[in-house]
Amino acid sequence: MTPEDYMRMAIEKCREGVEKGQAPFAAVIVKDGRVIASGHNTVWQDNDPTAHGEMNAIRAACKALATIDLEGSDIYSVGEPCPMCFSACHWAKLRKVYYGITIEDARELGFQELTISNARMKEEGGSPLKVEGPFLREECLEVARLWKSLHGDRTY
Amino acid sequence: MTPEDYMRMAIEKCREGVEKGQAPFAAVIVKDGRVIASGHNTVWQDNDPTAHGEMNAIRAACKALATIDLEGSDIYSVGEPCPMCFSACHWAKLRKVYYGITIEDARELGFQELTISNARMKEEGGSPLKVEGPFLREECLEVARLWKSLHGDRTY
Repeated sequence: MTPEDYMRMAIEKCREGVEKGQAPFAAVIVKDGRVIASGHNTVWQDNDPTAHGEMNAIRAACKALATIDLEGSDIYSVGEPCPMCFSACHWAKLRKVYYGITIEDARELGFQELTISNARMKEEGGSPLKVEGPFLREECLEVARLWKSLHGDRTY
Repeated sequence: MTPEDYMRMAIEKCREGVEKGQAPFAAVIVKDGRVIASGHNTVWQDNDPTAHGEMNAIRAACKALATIDLEGSDIYSVGEPCPMCFSACHWAKLRKVYYGITIEDARELGFQELTISNARMKEEGGSPLKVEGPFLREECLEVARLWKSLHGDRTY
């Protein structure tokens, strides 16, 4: 399995959420070549503004491994983690984040993103978290566009 | 009820968490003079690195009001919200955050904080969220010191 394979799993998880009317974001967490957890955005489903895809995946991974320390794990996220999710990755001690579309792309979809990139969060916050992206941006944009065509009038 | 009263409620909630061995952070959410929800940090209790006091309070408030939009609500937090919690306040559309001790104070307690103040998050991220703090910092430091004396060897 390659990073591309894991990102495509995240895209599939994202599509699952979009088909349920949820926002087009999802993530997969991998440790030592094994998928630990995945999650799509459930903000509307759970009536919870903190239920972003990355948050759901981190919480599920911690439950699965019975730890608050995900050291050595990587997260593959369809969207660049917003500052909330970036910080959650930092707190969970993830090793690396791969992301597809950028925070700017998410803003263009209509979401009220805080305009701070992961590179800025890392630099200014002093986090050891590694960041790689945009990664498979075109494939991630494709599922974002599917969401836009189906449910794009509803954002937050 | 004054802002001082609400902050003291947050301090009491924090003390409740500290007595259970949890990290010394808690928050109260108020709308139109009514306390909607409160929460203390449950990172260890719930085995969840995202379960900061502010996150727990926001999730409880959204559940109580059956909405993802806490417009017009204020949050009183013993600690300056970390970037994760600040961003959650932004997503939940809270009006104002009052905080007690600073992120620097929390770092000195031993927590691996991202060193980005709320003022920077607001300015750089472009958030309408209002911020006031340090507010009753000495009283908030007191409960932080209680935690330090009881459980201060355990941080994250």
